[in-house]
Amino acid sequence: MRSIRLIVAYDGGDYAGWQIQPGQVTVQEVLEGAIGKVTGEPARAVASGRTDAGVHALGQVVGFRTASRLPADVLRRALNAELPCDVAVLDAREAPEGFHPIRDAVRKRYRYVIHDGPVRDVFGRRYCWHYRSRLDAAAMQRAAGALLGRHDFRSFETSGAPRKDSIRTIYDLEVERGRGEGGDRITVEVEADGFLYNMVRAIVGSLVDVGRGAQDASWLARVLAARDRRRAGPTAPPQGLFLVRVELKDEG
Amino acid sequence: MRSIRLIVAYDGGDYAGWQIQPGQVTVQEVLEGAIGKVTGEPARAVASGRTDAGVHALGQVVGFRTASRLPADVLRRALNAELPCDVAVLDAREAPEGFHPIRDAVRKRYRYVIHDGPVRDVFGRRYCWHYRSRLDAAAMQRAAGALLGRHDFRSFETSGAPRKDSIRTIYDLEVERGRGEGGDRITVEVEADGFLYNMVRAIVGSLVDVGRGAQDASWLARVLAARDRRRAGPTAPPQGLFLVRVELKDEG
Repeated sequence: MRSIRLIVAYDGGDYAGWQIQPGQVTVQEVLEGAIGKVTGEPARAVASGRTDAGVHALGQVVGFRTASRLPADVLRRALNAELPCDVAVLDAREAPEGFHPIRDAVRKRYRYVIHDGPVRDVFGRRYCWHYRSRLDAAAMQRAAGALLGRHDFRSFETSGAPRKDSIRTIYDLEVERGRGEGGDRITVEVEADGFLYNMVRAIVGSLVDVGRGAQDASWLARVLAARDRRRAGPTAPPQGLFLVRVELKDEG
Repeated sequence: MRSIRLIVAYDGGDYAGWQIQPGQVTVQEVLEGAIGKVTGEPARAVASGRTDAGVHALGQVVGFRTASRLPADVLRRALNAELPCDVAVLDAREAPEGFHPIRDAVRKRYRYVIHDGPVRDVFGRRYCWHYRSRLDAAAMQRAAGALLGRHDFRSFETSGAPRKDSIRTIYDLEVERGRGEGGDRITVEVEADGFLYNMVRAIVGSLVDVGRGAQDASWLARVLAARDRRRAGPTAPPQGLFLVRVELKDEG
């Protein structure tokens, strides 16, 4: 059996998330179906990040094991021919023995896109949160500083997902307003060693509370210290969220 | 009665084009429905460019007449509240008496987007033509030069639309490959005093014949001179085409 590592992009808009669920269409299900057709054997695909319903991926990492001897690049093209048009395999290669996309992921980067212009963007509507009043991106960036580093992020975790602990390290958290034609667009990028359930969306919802002036920039530090989800802002909607990339150990 | 001029953007992917057709969902129909709800009276909306099924607009110009006294900006917001999420009114204002979006249009600009990377763009798939082999954008730009100026464009007109004549003037025709992350994307922009039926898509299909090496750069001049649609390339698919803007007389 060989171990294969894929990098997969998907528009999550029409999927009930990554993970297989009875009666729902999920990315895992369509990808396992394509692998089964191409290799002629049932497959189990494991992803580094179990993205939620409506969340997109630019660079999800997926692993599976197969007895097929097809070269990795032939696999990539064959999978893309089988997959629906909203899922694409960007890269396929042999993975080292024992490769595990969840255990081996050392960092993940997510992007969240907010459109705060007065009129909705008809082309971006599937890929952003349309917020109807102007946000103060500079205040959001100042507030974001409080979350950098190693903390207990329980205040930004939707309950229901059992976790050993809620301590994570955020290495980077940037809030940036676009320039020129992109001036109605705010991008939040966050990179960490791991994320709690709905953590990025709770952080973005809280940053928006600062950006709209409901909270001051120092509020986020108090929310973090409270370790209580009720103190943070709302969970931002899924369609603005993208899993950008996953860094695997030994890939640096 | 006042005359109102709108600038409208739409994602044409789920519409059978601009113009009302029995049993089909069209942009004109949903826009007239929204105007009717907002003004309380039936309305007839006229567009500068009758875009085809699946074609998008960044800046379609639409006119209608109404007895309503709502200020133009209130109209804009009210229309956006009624319209589906894939149609948006970007601007609304009073138009001069006698304003007519078709007669008063002096120039139109269209954009066509081709993606020629090896793997489909899952986020752009609704908004580009995915061409599976690499195109020579420089050769396409050289070939495009033959179409600049005032010509009989009958070779690039799908028959079936009665026209007084098929002479048009192309002021600008640019083929450009994106840079950096946009390197798999070729944009064709064309501006003219008017377009024949499917003219942009026939020009793009012909440019692609040059870009893939099936024709040399001087071929397009011969196609133009032949005044025979069968000599030109295929009609490019609709989802890559955008009506960018319409220039009205007295707006220069």
